[in-house]
Amino acid sequence: MVVSDQRVIGRPMPRADAPAKLNGQERFAGDLALAGLLHARPVLSTHAHARLVGVQSEAARAVPGVVTILTAADLPFAQGGPPRAAESLAREEIVYAGQPVALVLAESEGAAAEAAALVEVQYEDLPVVLDLVAAMDPGSPLARSLTKMGEDAAEAAMHGVGGGGAAEEAPQEKLSANVSGQTHLEMGDVATGFAAADVVAEGTYDTAWVHQGYIETQTCVAAPDGMGGVTIHASTQGLFRTRQVVAQTLGLAQEQVRVVAMPVGGGFGGKFGLIEPLTAAAALVARRPVRLGFTRGEDLLAANPTPAGRLEVKIGARRDGKVTAIQARLIFDTGAYPNSPMAGAAFAVAGCYHFPNLDIKGFEVMTNRLGPGAYRAPGNPQASFAVESVMDDLAGRLELDPIAFRLLNVPSEGDPRPDGKAWPIIGLKDCLERLSVHPLWQRRAARGATNGGRFREGIGVGVGGWRGGLEPAAALCHVDPSGIVNVVVGAVDLSGTFTTFRMIAAETLGVDYELVRVVGSDSTNAPYSGGSGGSKIVYTVGQAVQRAATDAREQILELAGQILEAAPQDLEIAGDRVRVKGMPAESDYEVTIAKIASLTSGFGAKHAPIAGRGTGAQTANAPGFSAHLARVRVDLDTGEVTLLDYVASQDVGRALNPAAVEGQIIGAVVQGIGWGLYEQLVHDENGQVVTGSLMDYALPRAEVVPHVETVLVEVPSPDGPFGARGVGEPPVIPVAAAIANAIHDATGVRPGAIPITPERLWKQIAAG
Amino acid sequence: MVVSDQRVIGRPMPRADAPAKLNGQERFAGDLALAGLLHARPVLSTHAHARLVGVQSEAARAVPGVVTILTAADLPFAQGGPPRAAESLAREEIVYAGQPVALVLAESEGAAAEAAALVEVQYEDLPVVLDLVAAMDPGSPLARSLTKMGEDAAEAAMHGVGGGGAAEEAPQEKLSANVSGQTHLEMGDVATGFAAADVVAEGTYDTAWVHQGYIETQTCVAAPDGMGGVTIHASTQGLFRTRQVVAQTLGLAQEQVRVVAMPVGGGFGGKFGLIEPLTAAAALVARRPVRLGFTRGEDLLAANPTPAGRLEVKIGARRDGKVTAIQARLIFDTGAYPNSPMAGAAFAVAGCYHFPNLDIKGFEVMTNRLGPGAYRAPGNPQASFAVESVMDDLAGRLELDPIAFRLLNVPSEGDPRPDGKAWPIIGLKDCLERLSVHPLWQRRAARGATNGGRFREGIGVGVGGWRGGLEPAAALCHVDPSGIVNVVVGAVDLSGTFTTFRMIAAETLGVDYELVRVVGSDSTNAPYSGGSGGSKIVYTVGQAVQRAATDAREQILELAGQILEAAPQDLEIAGDRVRVKGMPAESDYEVTIAKIASLTSGFGAKHAPIAGRGTGAQTANAPGFSAHLARVRVDLDTGEVTLLDYVASQDVGRALNPAAVEGQIIGAVVQGIGWGLYEQLVHDENGQVVTGSLMDYALPRAEVVPHVETVLVEVPSPDGPFGARGVGEPPVIPVAAAIANAIHDATGVRPGAIPITPERLWKQIAAG
Repeated sequence: MVVSDQRVIGRPMPRADAPAKLNGQERFAGDLALAGLLHARPVLSTHAHARLVGVQSEAARAVPGVVTILTAADLPFAQGGPPRAAESLAREEIVYAGQPVALVLAESEGAAAEAAALVEVQYEDLPVVLDLVAAMDPGSPLARSLTKMGEDAAEAAMHGVGGGGAAEEAPQEKLSANVSGQTHLEMGDVATGFAAADVVAEGTYDTAWVHQGYIETQTCVAAPDGMGGVTIHASTQGLFRTRQVVAQTLGLAQEQVRVVAMPVGGGFGGKFGLIEPLTAAAALVARRPVRLGFTRGEDLLAANPTPAGRLEVKIGARRDGKVTAIQARLIFDTGAYPNSPMAGAAFAVAGCYHFPNLDIKGFEVMTNRLGPGAYRAPGNPQASFAVESVMDDLAGRLELDPIAFRLLNVPSEGDPRPDGKAWPIIGLKDCLERLSVHPLWQRRAARGATNGGRFREGIGVGVGGWRGGLEPAAALCHVDPSGIVNVVVGAVDLSGTFTTFRMIAAETLGVDYELVRVVGSDSTNAPYSGGSGGSKIVYTVGQAVQRAATDAREQILELAGQILEAAPQDLEIAGDRVRVKGMPAESDYEVTIAKIASLTSGFGAKHAPIAGRGTGAQTANAPGFSAHLARVRVDLDTGEVTLLDYVASQDVGRALNPAAVEGQIIGAVVQGIGWGLYEQLVHDENGQVVTGSLMDYALPRAEVVPHVETVLVEVPSPDGPFGARGVGEPPVIPVAAAIANAIHDATGVRPGAIPITPERLWKQIAAG
Repeated sequence: MVVSDQRVIGRPMPRADAPAKLNGQERFAGDLALAGLLHARPVLSTHAHARLVGVQSEAARAVPGVVTILTAADLPFAQGGPPRAAESLAREEIVYAGQPVALVLAESEGAAAEAAALVEVQYEDLPVVLDLVAAMDPGSPLARSLTKMGEDAAEAAMHGVGGGGAAEEAPQEKLSANVSGQTHLEMGDVATGFAAADVVAEGTYDTAWVHQGYIETQTCVAAPDGMGGVTIHASTQGLFRTRQVVAQTLGLAQEQVRVVAMPVGGGFGGKFGLIEPLTAAAALVARRPVRLGFTRGEDLLAANPTPAGRLEVKIGARRDGKVTAIQARLIFDTGAYPNSPMAGAAFAVAGCYHFPNLDIKGFEVMTNRLGPGAYRAPGNPQASFAVESVMDDLAGRLELDPIAFRLLNVPSEGDPRPDGKAWPIIGLKDCLERLSVHPLWQRRAARGATNGGRFREGIGVGVGGWRGGLEPAAALCHVDPSGIVNVVVGAVDLSGTFTTFRMIAAETLGVDYELVRVVGSDSTNAPYSGGSGGSKIVYTVGQAVQRAATDAREQILELAGQILEAAPQDLEIAGDRVRVKGMPAESDYEVTIAKIASLTSGFGAKHAPIAGRGTGAQTANAPGFSAHLARVRVDLDTGEVTLLDYVASQDVGRALNPAAVEGQIIGAVVQGIGWGLYEQLVHDENGQVVTGSLMDYALPRAEVVPHVETVLVEVPSPDGPFGARGVGEPPVIPVAAAIANAIHDATGVRPGAIPITPERLWKQIAAG
């Protein structure tokens, strides 16, 4: 690839979706005004584990404007699909505080809310299971004691987006039935590995329940189609997956469910059909359109955040700095439904270094908490926090520069991954090398012992990597009768991907960027695409777009050749026209795209429409790695941490739209700061969520975010369009680790849990 | 083609759209419930030609629920596009009675109607031009005296659907500016031709303004998109054409107009964007969704029916029955906007016989009547009525069997068309031969002179032909993740075409019909297709569907070959699966389409989606001819005509879905009966439409329609899918002619005008 030849790729372009969003003109699912719309409000369980004895709704039904109040008994047809969808309203057993028990449908939001508050639920309490480790004991009470999750259901849930793979080999331990999943990765022999080590470091690291923090809460409008089917306008990351979940749950053919993806106000893995089955079922029963939009409180209590985990990691290294073995035991809470990031975390624990021996066991444990969902690089921030902390400790004991130590151990092309397969070409080494020469790191190396007093400063490093998702994709590239080049995809536009598709098509065709438009479609007629998640959309759908544009280009040149009486290979596309190469700009030697469009449309036109089509199924991952530096100041008196500087380097393969890539990185760093310092869904001893508002659940505010410097490393991926790799997940992974290591650098204290709240850190500092 | 190999093609299939329509569950544009919808009611001019002096709307505005009342002054941006769209509300000059002058927008239909009745319009009358022949005189007042139609506008209108081509050579006559278009077809020398003739017959034939008679009136809902554009849900025959008309009229880019085609309750050429520009303009001004649905009365006064004409035809023939020359002078009313079927009629006049010499002049004359639109085979029923009457007279004078006489003169492959080009293979001869041996015709030949008394019976024949429309088309054929084969088109489903596409795809793929679904798309993301008109959809879009299915088939076999470890050519698709030819039905030798779908979709799937794509641009017409027999009884005392029997033979190329083809033919015969006996929009001497309801405008009722026997002739078209030709227009063409000839056969009276009302016929009979 000759970079300098590219006219569009590599230039920072504003997002095509930005003006409507900035001007407030974008209409989201919640803005949809359908006549006859009913407003839905869920009644959430106030008990974490109970037998559902009864629901009294007489007073609620008396509220003017209330149309009906649904319980599970009213939705007997909606019990298929994934286990959580099948229990969209609680049946016999309530399994978490926040679980929807009833759904009020009313003519107004106000009436629905007033009635929901009047619904009385009778509970018969059951033992609440909350402690992860205790719950694994064969003698533990069960988080689900009246109803069983079938194995099929558990397995189906395991294959959810970001859920990772199944267990390679189940460890042999005597465990409670609360353990719904296990995984085991093994390579070499860790005993031998540790025996060969000169130093060994280990630690136990706790991570919290963290919410995806999207601005737009879960929102969906469902309308019956009058023929037994349903049309759903949803804030969803994936058309086809949402259709599948709804159809399975409601026992409909997939063709009876039409999903229209509305603009998404943030997803991050959390929007793959959570509330759509319930909303659709309600619409079918009510025979009217129904809107369900979670309040912020409902979203914090009843959505699908990433769950807490406990990670025990032990790593050995030789004096020369080479790691010899890693052993890890990961326990993930999976709340009321098996869908934890255990498998992803197990891979990630050993995914950034070349460990000749590894033994990683993962456990997924059911508790009486809400069910988990995917959240940006599921399992990876947790793994990075644990492993990078241990690696930092090892570097200290070996008296090696932390980056230099890491560089001694990063894998390169052909080295084995934790699952034994070989790594393709990756850019982790390049990312670390860029950091090692960065002025911020140089300053750390050059500093004296001047770090004293109440405020201590430190600089830390962290790394992370994401294999990258894969999913088949198709795309179309029409020359519209209007003369516009129309790219049609089935993907949902998140984080500017449609803008990137537009660039890919413009670059591939050779036409002006302004001449290209990208449009989505609905599940009825869209070319196939996976959900917008897993850092795979540009890599997979982008490839299909590139192929569709190549196909369209050939058709354009063929037709232009007929018009200009020239061989297609003697023609070039430039701007808004096709011209004979090397000839003066005169009409005899050129024809506009608009003219071509006019020859392929309209009554009696004589040429076939230009209809490019691209399909593909990437089978090789294009892993994206990132390495971050954080500089912090710690107030020893309060434990408060202030971020002073941040540098994020990342191998993006090729930054197709540098503005979008940098935006992704900066946004991820902000989310990572939330992971590291602020965010946690807290359950009390009864299983009640006590962080049910943004006053209690602490998202990072703009004032706590430092300037984030991005360092774009470009090690082209062999199969990505123009060399691109997925960029969405990697930059969230190492943030908490880099912050923790900076805190350790500043204070000598090793944080054992995220978020590193002032209280936690102050206690550790005080304990010395 | 081996017919017996076909599993689906050729079998009568029920229309896929029928259940929803029969059950009343289909939702049309008028059923769309959008929140905030405004109801529109037009105020129609009560004067046929006037200067618009003023509009008083104070009283109307006071009606509760009225939001605004728009006049042209409120829509300064909506003056582009076709001339009629540019004057959606009258500006300076009112040019027909029924022209919308103002548009009331109100919160309810009732308020809008009440207010519309209160709007007062001030007129300053101008001379009303109504007489076609007088209007051609250079001294005639002008139908449009204050405002000019620019030549560009007139030309643009001429290229409307069904408008035919421009004049080949303008005749040199001194004509009024009311004459907005002329055409001239000439071949050989008619003077020589008539000199060689042994007999010459001639006549003048008048035809009426006839409404398309769709059940669903013109209906449209337009909603502003908040970004300056507009989304239109319309009862339209063509997505892309309606988009173009609206965009041009409103000065928008085509991408700013999104057209969603709703199910159409009948179009027949009349629904190509008539009211959409006004509705869209109103929505943009009101910033709310607006629905305009014509009442039946408005549709009869202000839509776009086919216009009246006067056809003078003279034909000469030798004693051996060979025609020698035809001379014709056609004058078509084009009302207030140039868009008459003059050119189509000029071709049709000489289109069914091989006239060695011809001289056909056509004139299009503006009057103060509403503007015309396309109506099923525009200009052809009129031409057929005139020419077939003259041919019948010639047969009588030559004492030849009317069918035998026609058979002597029908063109065959290679004979010149009226425009000099050669006919491809056509089936007119076959249609006539089938009729000549039909028992009904045999009975006519065999009867004696027993036809006496008050009630006289007669049998007549008529023929007609339609060149067939052409337009490029594209289609897609996806294997959906659900395992359904999903055909996506940009065409609108009329008269069961989607069902036929489904059959084409199922046949081509080899899968079960039930496994295929056909879906439309909107103008934003649809593959290109022309409007559903001109008898071209199966011929053009069907070809694209066939190609898309072929493409998908190759992809399916390729992937199945990988799975089954077999060469694609050793595989066959049958039912819901692919199997190795000649092997037993076992899983090792077969794979289901559903399994293939699962391998091409979902996270981590390894195979590209099956995405077939087909494009095409038919350049050869596939003309469809029809020949009809009618048996009538005439009441000499009243002039009333009763149809007793009807036989319609037609070359359909290949009846892909015989049920749909027969339905098309029977429906067309019913419409033709309307042409022949009942239908006429009558204007009084002031230009007022006096047939403003279905009490006055006489559509044929079920009781007047006899059993219609269809005779399907199959002369395959070389390029149509499976040999198909267009079937929609041909069967409406000869109906009035066959009826007129049957009346002549019964009574000896030659009807000179259609509809042949009892009053007209009685007068002729009485005049003897």
